[in-house]
Amino acid sequence: MKISLDLLAQLRHRAYNMRVLCLEATTEAGSGHPTTCLSAADLVAALFFYGMQYDPENPAARNNDRFILSKGHGAPLLYAAWKEVGVLTKEDVMGLRSFSSVLEGHPVPRFPYVEAATGSLGMGLSIGLGMAIGGQRNNRSFYTYVLLGDSEMTEGSVWEAIELAAYYNVNRLIAIVDFNRLGQSIETIDDHDPAKHEERWKAFGWHTITIDGHDMKEIVEALDEAKKEYEKPTVIIAKTFKGYGIEVEDKMGYHGKAFSKEELPKMLKQLEERFKEDAKMQIEPPKLKPYTPRRKDVPEFTLPPCSYSKDAKVAPRKAFGETLVQLGTVLNDLIVLDAEVKNSTFTQLFEDAYPSRFIESFIAEQAMIGMAIGLSSLGYIPFSATFASFFSRAHDQIRMAAINRSALRLAGTHVGVSIGQDGPSQMGLEDIGMMRALPDSVVLYPCDAVSTYALTQLAVRYQDGISYLRLTRAATPVIYEPGDTFFIGGSKVLKESDNDRACIVAAGITVFEALKAYEELKKRNILVSVIDLYSIKPLDYETIKQQALKANKKLITVEDHFLQGGMGEAVCYALRNDDITIEVLAVTDISRSGTPEELLAYHKIDHMALIEAVYKLLV
Amino acid sequence: MKISLDLLAQLRHRAYNMRVLCLEATTEAGSGHPTTCLSAADLVAALFFYGMQYDPENPAARNNDRFILSKGHGAPLLYAAWKEVGVLTKEDVMGLRSFSSVLEGHPVPRFPYVEAATGSLGMGLSIGLGMAIGGQRNNRSFYTYVLLGDSEMTEGSVWEAIELAAYYNVNRLIAIVDFNRLGQSIETIDDHDPAKHEERWKAFGWHTITIDGHDMKEIVEALDEAKKEYEKPTVIIAKTFKGYGIEVEDKMGYHGKAFSKEELPKMLKQLEERFKEDAKMQIEPPKLKPYTPRRKDVPEFTLPPCSYSKDAKVAPRKAFGETLVQLGTVLNDLIVLDAEVKNSTFTQLFEDAYPSRFIESFIAEQAMIGMAIGLSSLGYIPFSATFASFFSRAHDQIRMAAINRSALRLAGTHVGVSIGQDGPSQMGLEDIGMMRALPDSVVLYPCDAVSTYALTQLAVRYQDGISYLRLTRAATPVIYEPGDTFFIGGSKVLKESDNDRACIVAAGITVFEALKAYEELKKRNILVSVIDLYSIKPLDYETIKQQALKANKKLITVEDHFLQGGMGEAVCYALRNDDITIEVLAVTDISRSGTPEELLAYHKIDHMALIEAVYKLLV
Repeated sequence: MKISLDLLAQLRHRAYNMRVLCLEATTEAGSGHPTTCLSAADLVAALFFYGMQYDPENPAARNNDRFILSKGHGAPLLYAAWKEVGVLTKEDVMGLRSFSSVLEGHPVPRFPYVEAATGSLGMGLSIGLGMAIGGQRNNRSFYTYVLLGDSEMTEGSVWEAIELAAYYNVNRLIAIVDFNRLGQSIETIDDHDPAKHEERWKAFGWHTITIDGHDMKEIVEALDEAKKEYEKPTVIIAKTFKGYGIEVEDKMGYHGKAFSKEELPKMLKQLEERFKEDAKMQIEPPKLKPYTPRRKDVPEFTLPPCSYSKDAKVAPRKAFGETLVQLGTVLNDLIVLDAEVKNSTFTQLFEDAYPSRFIESFIAEQAMIGMAIGLSSLGYIPFSATFASFFSRAHDQIRMAAINRSALRLAGTHVGVSIGQDGPSQMGLEDIGMMRALPDSVVLYPCDAVSTYALTQLAVRYQDGISYLRLTRAATPVIYEPGDTFFIGGSKVLKESDNDRACIVAAGITVFEALKAYEELKKRNILVSVIDLYSIKPLDYETIKQQALKANKKLITVEDHFLQGGMGEAVCYALRNDDITIEVLAVTDISRSGTPEELLAYHKIDHMALIEAVYKLLV
Repeated sequence: MKISLDLLAQLRHRAYNMRVLCLEATTEAGSGHPTTCLSAADLVAALFFYGMQYDPENPAARNNDRFILSKGHGAPLLYAAWKEVGVLTKEDVMGLRSFSSVLEGHPVPRFPYVEAATGSLGMGLSIGLGMAIGGQRNNRSFYTYVLLGDSEMTEGSVWEAIELAAYYNVNRLIAIVDFNRLGQSIETIDDHDPAKHEERWKAFGWHTITIDGHDMKEIVEALDEAKKEYEKPTVIIAKTFKGYGIEVEDKMGYHGKAFSKEELPKMLKQLEERFKEDAKMQIEPPKLKPYTPRRKDVPEFTLPPCSYSKDAKVAPRKAFGETLVQLGTVLNDLIVLDAEVKNSTFTQLFEDAYPSRFIESFIAEQAMIGMAIGLSSLGYIPFSATFASFFSRAHDQIRMAAINRSALRLAGTHVGVSIGQDGPSQMGLEDIGMMRALPDSVVLYPCDAVSTYALTQLAVRYQDGISYLRLTRAATPVIYEPGDTFFIGGSKVLKESDNDRACIVAAGITVFEALKAYEELKKRNILVSVIDLYSIKPLDYETIKQQALKANKKLITVEDHFLQGGMGEAVCYALRNDDITIEVLAVTDISRSGTPEELLAYHKIDHMALIEAVYKLLV
């Protein structure tokens, strides 16, 4: 393709404008990362005004190209680009980092042109990969561009995405590395040697192009070449200089430092002198109408009543897999992601039924969650499942998903000490705490197959944040009827009488310990009420309180989870100002291998511990 | 080197014995991963009886070679190897996975020959790297061997360690990949193509050797070659077959499945036929005396009183860096690890003073924690620091460190919404919950420079688990005298009178909001007591209770952290059965950019919110 000189001049002019605005806005804010923006300005100008095809008045349009700023601290550059496009004014951008602005220090979707919240490094490529795979599976024609910093290339999460992108031949994913040599406090690990860096991408199966990231012609040609690669994803490694165009160029010690109001004029002058021709040109950005994002709601659906019969023994994780299969028939946008444990989480059932809507992440939990964020942004309904303990591997990604207000559905299996012989490394014991702390999250914890069937559907319907489904490994007896109803924030009173001496709040596996304790105590003429708290967040405060008041004002919580951040603490917080005596049974020590029964007893969360706790409260 | 046939025959015999025992023990246990053990048996036999130099009666000896089983589900093989060495009996190994045995489903240091708890995949190499760097920095001559599975190579954490090992030229680190093609539920991403896989390690700067992992001569020669590499770390990619030697060899569907007691004789027969010669040989393992591990305690030390003067403004993170420098003079084994934010966490001060005891992990938090585990095992005192929010990136490693009973010291800076303009991606708001939930952890949260000086020392002294130091970004006024004392589980009553109408429990930045509220309320003739709860775990229940009872039985907690898992819930749990009215002020929503003051007010955790809460309690 022949590239017009006029085009290149225009792109350089855009880059110049963006550089100026980045300096002005960060100085106005009194903080931010101007030098980071200067290194990538040419790349972003070329992307926004040459490489990318998109409708600026409708950023959600089906075949718009996507852009993820993985190096989120370059946010001012993103905002400057959208100002050049015409959807922001200079005044908007000058509000950078202020409380009243949606243009935050790192990009968040309060500014609706942001495709993904970034700022914790090394996540953008997996998010972009999710979008690209989503497009690929649905024959959509858009490209996904991800701009990475060279510093963040040391995050293992990036290499997870690199490997998976090549494995899935996602050719419409284009990564661009702003290879500017300087990190926050040190030179990057690769220094300024793109050749060595390029070898790595190549070895992982990517098409690679190395360019001078300040040469607009090279940038434009590289973008053309990348789009012509039909087999593989492409990375453009762009050698750049941090602080390009001003006196701190390529100098250590200027990361994350805004220039003072006194210094600013000198810096702007330097830009003007360095980019004389580019500064002269005039292009008036259009004034575009503001975009109001519309959420794509989960469609209405109904499933037939489930067929689990009472007292059959079914593992909740298995019921989960079976429910997913049924959901697949009514929800075309449901996509299930696995981290190579699908035969344990039973997502394999979904893969068998809908192979094209299943994504195998192999053992790469961070990439799995990153991809889910990207898929969610495209309007898919992603459900990611692995062992509960291994969600801790992607805790930072899940945290960022919450900030991104992504509707992720997560299912964690192999929870608690009751998994038994495999030992503590495989036991999810911190997952309730981790998931409860996410703003806008819900935490659901079914004990049997019927409630799993219902709660899986509720998780899919929930779209205001992250929904977490905690799934027991063991086959548990079905205690509910197919017609029983469940809701987010609900609970079930399983046992109650007019003469209860205490109330037991249980969830998951401990529901059965509570029922055993109930039967044993009943033989001794001690009646207790039992609540199945299947919704840990939100929590059914009213029911717990009423049952506790009715039951002698005595309450026992019992959970197969660490005490801290768990159900017991949640209940203590909720009931903090009620006159109710509470005993909390939870795991407090490092566990070990053993049978489920031995371990429930060892950690004092079994029926015997409950009986003891009831006696203690009654003394 | 000339290798004797006799040696090879002996190694094959060891491998045969180990295969037999792995089948027997997993069948006896009724669970486990026998086929995983069969693929790696030849490698482990060669390591234990040829490659490694160690004193089996003193596994902690200074120059013993180290062995990390990164593929922790191969635990039976590890135990079988130690049985061959003579430190375990067959009966010991047959107790595999039982409650009464220290030989768990995945290795933990309850069996003292385990160098690191594994079982969450992809961590072993960074732990080994920590050991190798520790040895390198101290001119120790041992080698560190890490056995990895091919499935776990998709974990980004492995590539973090690979990159850092090459960067630091850690030539005494030898990785061995058991390249057996089959994962848990699927073929590995690399299938059985070691060449493609080898390219990746090469591109990251490793010396690579590819061998037939069942050919003992090739294994032995590769180990020799690896030891002769003086510049780089070496990886031996060993092409193997899962289930090698029995009818399920190289077949999908046999991961994590023990054979039944009925099937076992057939499998043992197949082994005997396949390895006829190896089966025949007889070597009687010696009976070695059992090893009792001794902990290397942190040496006694005293620092001079600190020199921070009252009302000076010093950021706790800065005081932390300055304290580390002082600790460096009295603790030779103190090593500080950074994840490329040392100029923000002020660990740069330590690097400047003691460059040889500083490890730059670049932006690779998982590797940073993995290395700290390895360093801790060698007897070093590792202190790792980064932004609190980014510890979530290494949550799984930290979880495993707790299972490993490692004495890690972690410092998280940039906590809470009070960091201001950078926005939510940089705000640590879940760290208290995450760290509290670790068994045996302590969580310390100084508000000023003097308490930081004291608590940093306490964190270093604590050796029964993980100590976490939560550090405020802003410069806060010094409120303590250099002579004031602090202890784990303590608190400070900053304000009290005989007429207190409520008690405020604060920590870190909210201590100053509480003091402001105190002054304002005092003007209005309302007295409140104020507690600085600098030790969040353990928590000073007695003082809080007494102050609350004295203060009208009314308590307010205020923290710059999410409500869930935070200080407020911890207090509600502790005081659950006391007749005290509690109000909890904490962050519950997604934050945004703004000034610290704006954000403290927005989330209702500032002095105005406290005043309002006091009034509400008094109505």
